[in-house]
Amino acid sequence: MPDQPVLDEFDPAQWVWGSDASAPRLLHTMIRVSDFEASQRFYIDLLGMKLLDRFDVASREVTALFLGFGDYAAGGVIELTRKWNASGPHSHGSGYGHVAIGVPDVEATIARLEAAGVEVATAPVIPMPGGPMIAFVKDPDGYMIELVQTRR
Amino acid sequence: MPDQPVLDEFDPAQWVWGSDASAPRLLHTMIRVSDFEASQRFYIDLLGMKLLDRFDVASREVTALFLGFGDYAAGGVIELTRKWNASGPHSHGSGYGHVAIGVPDVEATIARLEAAGVEVATAPVIPMPGGPMIAFVKDPDGYMIELVQTRR
Repeated sequence: MPDQPVLDEFDPAQWVWGSDASAPRLLHTMIRVSDFEASQRFYIDLLGMKLLDRFDVASREVTALFLGFGDYAAGGVIELTRKWNASGPHSHGSGYGHVAIGVPDVEATIARLEAAGVEVATAPVIPMPGGPMIAFVKDPDGYMIELVQTRR
Repeated sequence: MPDQPVLDEFDPAQWVWGSDASAPRLLHTMIRVSDFEASQRFYIDLLGMKLLDRFDVASREVTALFLGFGDYAAGGVIELTRKWNASGPHSHGSGYGHVAIGVPDVEATIARLEAAGVEVATAPVIPMPGGPMIAFVKDPDGYMIELVQTRR
């Protein structure tokens, strides 16, 4: 059960994904998680994302958190959903790959995540000559998250 | 085998994800596909995305297409990858949900997609009072793609 008031009415003020409503755009990627506390520690406390919205939808018995580094207009968003009566972990097929997050310093980020107990799937490496350093970590539900260096 | 020259050297000019390299940001969501021609018809011809980059990486025998509605700086990007020797379709676990794309007119988009033979998983509906119309379609590999109305 959610620990916040249930929201079944949509707040029109939330209906904002950038000012230009005439252009198609990517809005978010949704993944299903099993423990919001663990997810928020990973995405918010460790990676620096912000909680943009929380929707507790009683009619569908589901809660959705929207997380971003900026607001909706500023770019990509991750939606984490959890069915109130969900049991056990979700399975990962062979199709979904990863969500990539750009960070200024991959090695420093990996050191910080590792110290916090996050599983590093691929240690920092430069896969293509002249290209950016990358690394992969697993989020609390085992989703692969790629870190890509944005500063040369 | 790719039908374009193989790229193993990273082009530094491609290393661009927006001008502010000091702020973390979401870069892309990667999914594995089996038929680039079908994927490009869906994401480019039908949904209006642009091919930003194609990397044919001989050393790892993989090709990656980066697609966006704008350039890298403008927001979210989808990466479609295909192993050169991949056989058969990928499996979908229960964890990955969908990628959401905002469009000005969900009903018109669904009509256009349906006429082109795209499978509609959820017909246009307003799930929350006062909220936007949404719909779900399946991409050629069966990934769920949510369409969300951006114009009120």
